[in-house]
Amino acid sequence: MSKPLVLNEDRLFPSDPTMRAIARRLYGEVKDLPIISPHGHTNPQWFADDTPFPDPANLLIVPDHYIFRMLYSHGVTLERLGIARKDGGAVETDPRKVWRTFADKFYLFRGTPTRIWTDHVLAEVFGVKVQLTPETADEIYDHIEDCLSKPEFRPRALFERFGIEVMATTESPLDDLRHHKKILESGWDRRVVTAFRPDPVVDPDFEGFADNVAQLGEITGEDSASWSGYLNALAARRAYFKQHGCTSTDHGHPSAASADLATGDCETLLSKALAGTCTPDEAERFRAQMLTEMARMSLDDGLVMQIHPGSFRNHNAHLFENFGRDMGADIPTCTEYVHALKPLLDRFGNEADLTIILFMLDETAQGREMAPLAGHYPALRLGPPWWFFDSAEGMLRFRRNVTETAGFYNTVGFNDDTRAFLSIPSRHDVARRIDCAYLAELVADHRLEEDEAREVAVDLTYNLVKAAYKL
Amino acid sequence: MSKPLVLNEDRLFPSDPTMRAIARRLYGEVKDLPIISPHGHTNPQWFADDTPFPDPANLLIVPDHYIFRMLYSHGVTLERLGIARKDGGAVETDPRKVWRTFADKFYLFRGTPTRIWTDHVLAEVFGVKVQLTPETADEIYDHIEDCLSKPEFRPRALFERFGIEVMATTESPLDDLRHHKKILESGWDRRVVTAFRPDPVVDPDFEGFADNVAQLGEITGEDSASWSGYLNALAARRAYFKQHGCTSTDHGHPSAASADLATGDCETLLSKALAGTCTPDEAERFRAQMLTEMARMSLDDGLVMQIHPGSFRNHNAHLFENFGRDMGADIPTCTEYVHALKPLLDRFGNEADLTIILFMLDETAQGREMAPLAGHYPALRLGPPWWFFDSAEGMLRFRRNVTETAGFYNTVGFNDDTRAFLSIPSRHDVARRIDCAYLAELVADHRLEEDEAREVAVDLTYNLVKAAYKL
Amino acid sequence: MSKPLVLNEDRLFPSDPTMRAIARRLYGEVKDLPIISPHGHTNPQWFADDTPFPDPANLLIVPDHYIFRMLYSHGVTLERLGIARKDGGAVETDPRKVWRTFADKFYLFRGTPTRIWTDHVLAEVFGVKVQLTPETADEIYDHIEDCLSKPEFRPRALFERFGIEVMATTESPLDDLRHHKKILESGWDRRVVTAFRPDPVVDPDFEGFADNVAQLGEITGEDSASWSGYLNALAARRAYFKQHGCTSTDHGHPSAASADLATGDCETLLSKALAGTCTPDEAERFRAQMLTEMARMSLDDGLVMQIHPGSFRNHNAHLFENFGRDMGADIPTCTEYVHALKPLLDRFGNEADLTIILFMLDETAQGREMAPLAGHYPALRLGPPWWFFDSAEGMLRFRRNVTETAGFYNTVGFNDDTRAFLSIPSRHDVARRIDCAYLAELVADHRLEEDEAREVAVDLTYNLVKAAYKL
Repeated sequence: MSKPLVLNEDRLFPSDPTMRAIARRLYGEVKDLPIISPHGHTNPQWFADDTPFPDPANLLIVPDHYIFRMLYSHGVTLERLGIARKDGGAVETDPRKVWRTFADKFYLFRGTPTRIWTDHVLAEVFGVKVQLTPETADEIYDHIEDCLSKPEFRPRALFERFGIEVMATTESPLDDLRHHKKILESGWDRRVVTAFRPDPVVDPDFEGFADNVAQLGEITGEDSASWSGYLNALAARRAYFKQHGCTSTDHGHPSAASADLATGDCETLLSKALAGTCTPDEAERFRAQMLTEMARMSLDDGLVMQIHPGSFRNHNAHLFENFGRDMGADIPTCTEYVHALKPLLDRFGNEADLTIILFMLDETAQGREMAPLAGHYPALRLGPPWWFFDSAEGMLRFRRNVTETAGFYNTVGFNDDTRAFLSIPSRHDVARRIDCAYLAELVADHRLEEDEAREVAVDLTYNLVKAAYKL
Repeated sequence: MSKPLVLNEDRLFPSDPTMRAIARRLYGEVKDLPIISPHGHTNPQWFADDTPFPDPANLLIVPDHYIFRMLYSHGVTLERLGIARKDGGAVETDPRKVWRTFADKFYLFRGTPTRIWTDHVLAEVFGVKVQLTPETADEIYDHIEDCLSKPEFRPRALFERFGIEVMATTESPLDDLRHHKKILESGWDRRVVTAFRPDPVVDPDFEGFADNVAQLGEITGEDSASWSGYLNALAARRAYFKQHGCTSTDHGHPSAASADLATGDCETLLSKALAGTCTPDEAERFRAQMLTEMARMSLDDGLVMQIHPGSFRNHNAHLFENFGRDMGADIPTCTEYVHALKPLLDRFGNEADLTIILFMLDETAQGREMAPLAGHYPALRLGPPWWFFDSAEGMLRFRRNVTETAGFYNTVGFNDDTRAFLSIPSRHDVARRIDCAYLAELVADHRLEEDEAREVAVDLTYNLVKAAYKL
Repeated sequence: MSKPLVLNEDRLFPSDPTMRAIARRLYGEVKDLPIISPHGHTNPQWFADDTPFPDPANLLIVPDHYIFRMLYSHGVTLERLGIARKDGGAVETDPRKVWRTFADKFYLFRGTPTRIWTDHVLAEVFGVKVQLTPETADEIYDHIEDCLSKPEFRPRALFERFGIEVMATTESPLDDLRHHKKILESGWDRRVVTAFRPDPVVDPDFEGFADNVAQLGEITGEDSASWSGYLNALAARRAYFKQHGCTSTDHGHPSAASADLATGDCETLLSKALAGTCTPDEAERFRAQMLTEMARMSLDDGLVMQIHPGSFRNHNAHLFENFGRDMGADIPTCTEYVHALKPLLDRFGNEADLTIILFMLDETAQGREMAPLAGHYPALRLGPPWWFFDSAEGMLRFRRNVTETAGFYNTVGFNDDTRAFLSIPSRHDVARRIDCAYLAELVADHRLEEDEAREVAVDLTYNLVKAAYKL
């Protein structure tokens, strides 16, 4: 017998009745505010072409590494989930079977954000009335498939229904931004902007780095094999992105290392990087120098800079070889900020006109390094908890770790940072609920008055993010 | 005037009435389940011979490093506690005096797990009715001494009364397992199994390493001075242990480093290790290689592998010199897993038939490294919080740090990991209560439904541990 | 319209009614106990001369780096806050304008301890009835200015009104302690003692190190350029401090590194340090050696040793150049204790007559390293959470992280560690409230009985600190 799927209206609020009542009141002030999504990885083509989404499995499971990493940990092969192999080898092609596999293992997600997001997508986006179990899998699959064929489930219709005011995607400097152009020219009244993500052309360890840099030169008409031409080319692409609505850059380095090297050293490192002869240490120094160069350009062109350090990418050699990047095998590492960022901060940390948003995959740095740094340097702000920590407990820990040192106003609201478009309302809802839960604690123990908490709740949900990202 | 000793039936449950009621209901489902104790350090001879336990001090204090480390920190010498000196020098021999010293300082344990365990042992195991204070010390001593003389307080009777279904001890590969044999042959209907702990023969820094390896060769008839003979000897002992009921191995390395070296390098390292000429770095590489070798053998013979890294053993040079190992001076250290385990995981991480259980003494790795690794690699599971973190707060932090990324089903239930046999029911009771308290939070804020939480509670208490350890 | 400023009597207590009631009862036992302030940085001249404090801005804002670091992070220059430039350049000289800037940005402190302390100072010390906002800034400024002109707001009157029994300041070995002498000779019945802070003469990286050491030699008549003369000079100054009421030393090193070098190496390092030719590693080794020397001297003269490691001082090169030290740009760093302290502990860790109080700016070390070390070594105790962690959440985390391993009795009560004299009652009040809140948790979930919690609360507030600091 199937169990009803109901999203309790008090979910994620503290159990204590005093705090719960406060949280509920605060949430009432923010739950219907528009969604600002300043950083994410959805596909702009969806909104450019506005064609229907594919089947439930290819929409909800195949692109979601949160889901398939958990299934994989319990012995479900990526082939069974329909993930394409690099060698074109056989994988499951029946989306219904992929969906059933997910339903069979859905109990694994108990206590995880994926459970919360999935329930929300099913109940709110699709109006599913029963819980997902092996028994209800087919019925729900049919229901979603049916929805997806309707006009009100097309990308733009959902975007509007979700109350999204503006959403950023992320593109390589080599991208021609054709989808963003098409959206702009279509006269649609919603904003889908891009963010400048230069990893493919600033990280010597990125697959195809030398080719990417050569292509960068071709696109811009600069000699990208020379240090000055390379910098010019990057500045040109930043300007191009900015013309197409971009307000921010994003940097996904293995560490937060920055550098401030002499020009001669930069030239030498670039040559080695293009020749593929960098040692690991030299590649790290090149990336470090590029963080500082990007900060310098941000001071010039006003793009807000985001630093996402600390992921050991593609840790699973076997999966990387057979399936490529982003297969759920990126693992956080211990990340140092205080020494790492000093070269960059020595040059630009005191610039009140520059905004650098720091993210972390190492929660220990929140209170120890990040809040003290952001609570001092005018150029620094703290991004919301990222990736594995974009969760109820993770968000609460973040507020508890940073607020006492950095306050609320050195943070920048929420990022959903997702490829899973349908989960965006749920992710923002979780963030709003947890911020209200945290504020309710402060009100309940008289660290803050409720009228102030109301103001802070609105700022965290809407004002801070718009201001920080210049949206 | 003595105060009554009463174990409140709601102890360790959240104070909020809604959560407390849920926790109480969940606990009701698991409190009487049999105890599965898959990892510990009790003495198998107790159950082989079933002779009465000694006096209260030698039963409860002298072997318990949690107790004497705290007393030592407040200036009580180990001699006063009756701990034997290596030089045979004078120590307290009157167990009643040792007991009185403990009672005098019992206030030091306020807020610690030792307080919880001790109260439970006194109240539940011995039926003591008054709190332990300097004034009641003698009365309680007499009462326990009296109990210990009775048949119902012999090791096997207690084992049965505690509801233990199966318990693992830990032995060196050099152990002949005579006690386990005797238990098996005795026809007793309870299981006491061994675990294979090869540190004395795989860690070049272990006291007597070369002699131990030589002895390993003698026992197995292999040339343990050659790399292939050494590996054969280890495989042979694993087989011998398995014949005697062993289902798991255990590895207590200073770090989680693994390696995948060429055979020639292994041969060289073994020779140096046997000659006592390893540098610290070479000793570390040898241990690292042995983790990978042990994983390979586990894939062959099916023994579940436990890795317990990160303890700086015998930190107090003075105590080590005068009293030897395990004197309460083992201190946790910062422990890295992501780079450390990569060589091992590159070879065996994708094996769904292999189970490697990771433990930690560095809580920062829980959410940052361990949950992401275990939430991805099929071969990995997470052991419960260990040693200093086997406590109410430690267990709660563990669940809060790992569940959102790894879920419940990449964890393996509770380990008591103790030498203190009489504390086993209390330790399992604490774990059950805290798991129920955590689940009650999830239910109260509507992250999980209560029927699911009931299922999870039973899985955490009983099913997951039996499955993970193949018991 | 201004809002009333009211300090709720239940502030910082848990919201759950059961826990709140317990916390309230426990707090009732300790709220009126005298303040023992064993470590801080107030100016002894205040109490020697007992002249009125200056205007509100120069009393409450200019010396408080917690305040100006936050304002600076939001683009308020230090010049606007009236902080003196090293080059004598123009800064704001109107204290009322500085105060208005603070009031304009006071919302930035929502959720921070500065908010709690400021509200307490305004309401309790000055009897301000309205909340600080841009609109009420002038009115409050006038009120405080008026207060400061009255005799009951002079330093000694406030000291007495605050219920301070004894307070420590911190002085360099080069200080002649004239203010302390004057206080002693004045016949005042309160105690203001000094603490011996030798950083300027034991840290080769301290500004003016060689000159400082030369001056040390002059003061003591020792040849401070020789190792033995240098040590003699330090011992002589310690004796001088002790004669003037000092009971403790304090060491603010970048790391917790200790060393136990041969005399020849010490001589060489001192020579290099005086010549200014130390490498960074040599400077670190010199400081490390000096920690061990200071411990040795503490064993001789009985001064309690405090180690405050882990701050990256003067991280902002621009501010350091223009404004000097202590400009809110000191940032915590990852701090290791287990290996770092071993040389010192190998020599003196087992001395029950020695007290070394460890502090931390890296909360990860609390449970992993510090509690296990202090819960074992007789010479070690744990100082309260320091600096950025001297806050409601920080104090709660501290108790939760260390109590289960080290208990309460290896901690030493509260330190306010402040330059902001008027905030001292508030800081102690926060500490008392949070200790009671934590104890209320233990009582509510039956880990501790309420009569014991009462005893612990009094010990944490009064007895432990007096005993640990020999006050």
